[in-house]
Amino acid sequence: MNGSRTWRIGLIGFGNVGQGFVRVLARKEVMLREKYGFNFKIVGIADPVKGSVFDPNGLDPRKLIELVDRYGNIKAYEGGRKDIDSLTLCRSGDVDIIVEVTPTNVKTGEPGLTHIREALSNGKHVVTSNKGPIALAYRELKELAEKKGVMLRFEGTVLSGTPAINLALESLAGAEISKVEGIVNGTTNFILTKMEEGLTFEEALKEAQRLGYAEADPTADIEGWDAAVKAVIIANVIMGASITLNDVEREGISRISREDVANALKEGKKIKLLAEVVKEDGRVRASVKPTKIPLTHPLAGVSGPINALTLHTDTLGRVTIIGPGAGRVETGQAILSDVLAIHRYVRGA
Amino acid sequence: MNGSRTWRIGLIGFGNVGQGFVRVLARKEVMLREKYGFNFKIVGIADPVKGSVFDPNGLDPRKLIELVDRYGNIKAYEGGRKDIDSLTLCRSGDVDIIVEVTPTNVKTGEPGLTHIREALSNGKHVVTSNKGPIALAYRELKELAEKKGVMLRFEGTVLSGTPAINLALESLAGAEISKVEGIVNGTTNFILTKMEEGLTFEEALKEAQRLGYAEADPTADIEGWDAAVKAVIIANVIMGASITLNDVEREGISRISREDVANALKEGKKIKLLAEVVKEDGRVRASVKPTKIPLTHPLAGVSGPINALTLHTDTLGRVTIIGPGAGRVETGQAILSDVLAIHRYVRGA
Repeated sequence: MNGSRTWRIGLIGFGNVGQGFVRVLARKEVMLREKYGFNFKIVGIADPVKGSVFDPNGLDPRKLIELVDRYGNIKAYEGGRKDIDSLTLCRSGDVDIIVEVTPTNVKTGEPGLTHIREALSNGKHVVTSNKGPIALAYRELKELAEKKGVMLRFEGTVLSGTPAINLALESLAGAEISKVEGIVNGTTNFILTKMEEGLTFEEALKEAQRLGYAEADPTADIEGWDAAVKAVIIANVIMGASITLNDVEREGISRISREDVANALKEGKKIKLLAEVVKEDGRVRASVKPTKIPLTHPLAGVSGPINALTLHTDTLGRVTIIGPGAGRVETGQAILSDVLAIHRYVRGA
Repeated sequence: MNGSRTWRIGLIGFGNVGQGFVRVLARKEVMLREKYGFNFKIVGIADPVKGSVFDPNGLDPRKLIELVDRYGNIKAYEGGRKDIDSLTLCRSGDVDIIVEVTPTNVKTGEPGLTHIREALSNGKHVVTSNKGPIALAYRELKELAEKKGVMLRFEGTVLSGTPAINLALESLAGAEISKVEGIVNGTTNFILTKMEEGLTFEEALKEAQRLGYAEADPTADIEGWDAAVKAVIIANVIMGASITLNDVEREGISRISREDVANALKEGKKIKLLAEVVKEDGRVRASVKPTKIPLTHPLAGVSGPINALTLHTDTLGRVTIIGPGAGRVETGQAILSDVLAIHRYVRGA
């Protein structure tokens, strides 16, 4: 046990998730020390837009948040080196854990994939919420981490801070999971819930955009791409498959009408955009599609932007987890829980 | 990393849970080695009724199950020493992990409390599903484990193998939990569900007894004692309190009539036996009582013998987990997940 170690964290990306994580760290610094024996320094941040700064003595999380709240960037941070780039941070001898939170690119995985490879190769633990590298290269990255004796954790890629990956891999260790069904995209679940209340698809989408749940270009959500990427992660990480995005049978919700939703309700059913990953005879199939489920189904009551997973196991039957699936602080919580897991494992309890 | 270590397990108690655990181990031996690098030997079992046997070379799990299925005990096991007792097993130099699964006694915690103290004092990791010692002496046992540099794990004490304790302490590490609401007793939830279908309390209780959900003397379940013990564990383990069973405001379901249930349904509500643990101004209050909840409440859809917990957190809002709350294999899964956690932590990943 080495409770007095100070973890040196390097942050790549200072958008919503990076800021959410630093906010949570700043607010919880004392609690983390007292309850978990967890001490940290943020030694560097690298973001091509928000700015970069590096100081092996540690940056002040409160000042970083203050600056980004006021100016939208951290370029005016006093002290530290400003010429640091992301790859230098990945290789720095002053960093123990790289937190990789650049935007997801599901085609190339970049720039996250290169960052994660570089950090692991240089013996850094990596925590990420970036879905691209995990969906594209989980096996390679996992083997690299094992070879280097470091950890690669990514709770935030599915259901944000709501335990999903670590629930399946750690809390349910030893159980065999033959099927995972989930509502893994909050935007589409919000839209479908609003359509149950009588809105048309277009009205519900506008409402989702107004509330910040949907992007200006909502394609990734409503056509099921985001859910399909999460299905790939579930298949490859939880169920041991090696599938790609092209292997996922995918249909979005843009062709669902208010009438479809109302007719389903009359039958005692709800239409949900379900991600389903099934292992049968050693083969794993994944799909994302609008599905009618009875009101008694454990996912039927999951409304609004909330996400959920039902895991079908050999020893426990169905286990369902329900919680938020997105958000700055929510994904910051995912990163925090992963960083604390590294702290626990390295400490040996 | 030490993937080739063989964990030597000593089992105290060979009732339902102990048998469930050995059944699961026997069935999963190959998978556990291949997937988790987990190798084990059961070196001893001590049970004053089912029989005791000790062999540092390892007992055959399949033979143990075969014997107990055929004769109700393992006294005819060929080989090994039969004169082993539980305390000798706790002290044996041939044991790494003690699995303590004797019956719960919530007044004294015995004999489990003595077993766990003795095992920890002798530097053994301990895994238990025994609620008594954890409800009565969590802090003392936790400090003893820390002092000795070993782990004390007890996922099975709440919601059997459905992640509850480890979900809150590990998967949700860093989140502050201000309130836990739960359906933590399957027997009473089954009875209330049957009463929604029109049965009287007495009829529903008989049905529960027929199906093996309720004991011949159902007091511990229907008067809320079992749920109250779990509320104590939640309060002390998850929310840092130091309360006892007497501190729990407790009311059972024996005075709930079919009419009460029907009237609630007419109001769009369900009556559930809710355990609630709330932290306010640093003080923790715990209660178990029949509570009317609206159908939109995340616990309203939890029917039959299923259990659930809703954790109210600062970073994620509400997170709900739903799954089985009892059962031989289900609690065996809890023990297995804890044993695998010890394996992970000691290995350092």
